[in-house]
Amino acid sequence: MSSGIVRCVTLRGTAESEDVLTAFLSYLGRDPHFVRIEIPGVPGHLDVARFVLAKGLNRSVRSQDFRIAPSDDPDVLFIGIPADPALTFLVARQALGAFLAETYVLVPAGQENERIDWDGEYDLLIERTESP
Amino acid sequence: MSSGIVRCVTLRGTAESEDVLTAFLSYLGRDPHFVRIEIPGVPGHLDVARFVLAKGLNRSVRSQDFRIAPSDDPDVLFIGIPADPALTFLVARQALGAFLAETYVLVPAGQENERIDWDGEYDLLIERTESP
Amino acid sequence: MSSGIVRCVTLRGTAESEDVLTAFLSYLGRDPHFVRIEIPGVPGHLDVARFVLAKGLNRSVRSQDFRIAPSDDPDVLFIGIPADPALTFLVARQALGAFLAETYVLVPAGQENERIDWDGEYDLLIERTESP
Repeated sequence: MSSGIVRCVTLRGTAESEDVLTAFLSYLGRDPHFVRIEIPGVPGHLDVARFVLAKGLNRSVRSQDFRIAPSDDPDVLFIGIPADPALTFLVARQALGAFLAETYVLVPAGQENERIDWDGEYDLLIERTESP
Repeated sequence: MSSGIVRCVTLRGTAESEDVLTAFLSYLGRDPHFVRIEIPGVPGHLDVARFVLAKGLNRSVRSQDFRIAPSDDPDVLFIGIPADPALTFLVARQALGAFLAETYVLVPAGQENERIDWDGEYDLLIERTESP
Repeated sequence: MSSGIVRCVTLRGTAESEDVLTAFLSYLGRDPHFVRIEIPGVPGHLDVARFVLAKGLNRSVRSQDFRIAPSDDPDVLFIGIPADPALTFLVARQALGAFLAETYVLVPAGQENERIDWDGEYDLLIERTESP
């Protein structure tokens, strides 16, 4: 049985790339520390720590493969994704905040580790290690 | 027991055909790769790959019997269905995105094959083959 | 255990009868081809084929005791119920569409006959025939 939260958000390009794209934010419980970002038509996906997204609502946060920061417009956040060329977008603060709020219902902040199925993860690790 | 997702969306005709029609988008789990589109009053239905609809949120995608593409208005997508005459509609990006997000909760992207009941499908194939 | 769908919709009178009434739409699984319409305060009820309601979203449909058709306003459908005097109402397209979408989750279009408990129906028929 699947349980989780998936929401679509609209990414608006910054001056350099004025595309409007729909991205899916997924929080699927198995990986309670992370939010998966998928942009249909853009290959691959990005797993960003939930606390990074949350912190980015209010402060600039930069990790190796993701940047999120407030913008000049208080209703809009800046998101940067390394690519070639780099992708930079604006996303509605309200949309990201509402998504994160829903994830906190499923797994409250600070209780992520309690939700991880460590035995299952261990079995999976062993299995992967044993496979050629 | 049935489990799945069905949503109605409004299709607005383009200049040539200004009808407003209600269509039903169904994702019924048995066929996790496909979304069924039914337009009451229009005979038949259309099964479109879920990844095609998702990609069409951001890029023009054309298959043999379906076309979906961004339009001039970022809030609206263009849909083309071959018929005689061809049907062309506009649909709200948000409505399609929200529907797809719901389907990703049921079956996350990339996990479609895991949800197929291969034994059941095999039995059904045998049954069909054996029937005259 | 009960399983089914009941939703209330607002019926707005047309020019001749400007009443606003609440109606209940019921889809209770036992009769998967039909939707029951009840208007509290109006005696009796009306069982309308589900496919008639669906088709009426997009095309004018008339049966012996029910008429549904698009109106001049794309957001609103016209409903006519024979009575003395005849009742004519407007109902929101979105409300009817969302209700039907829910019924399609319970019983997908085209699978109505599979959901009928034919043995139970037969027993009931025999029972009724044998009762004086």
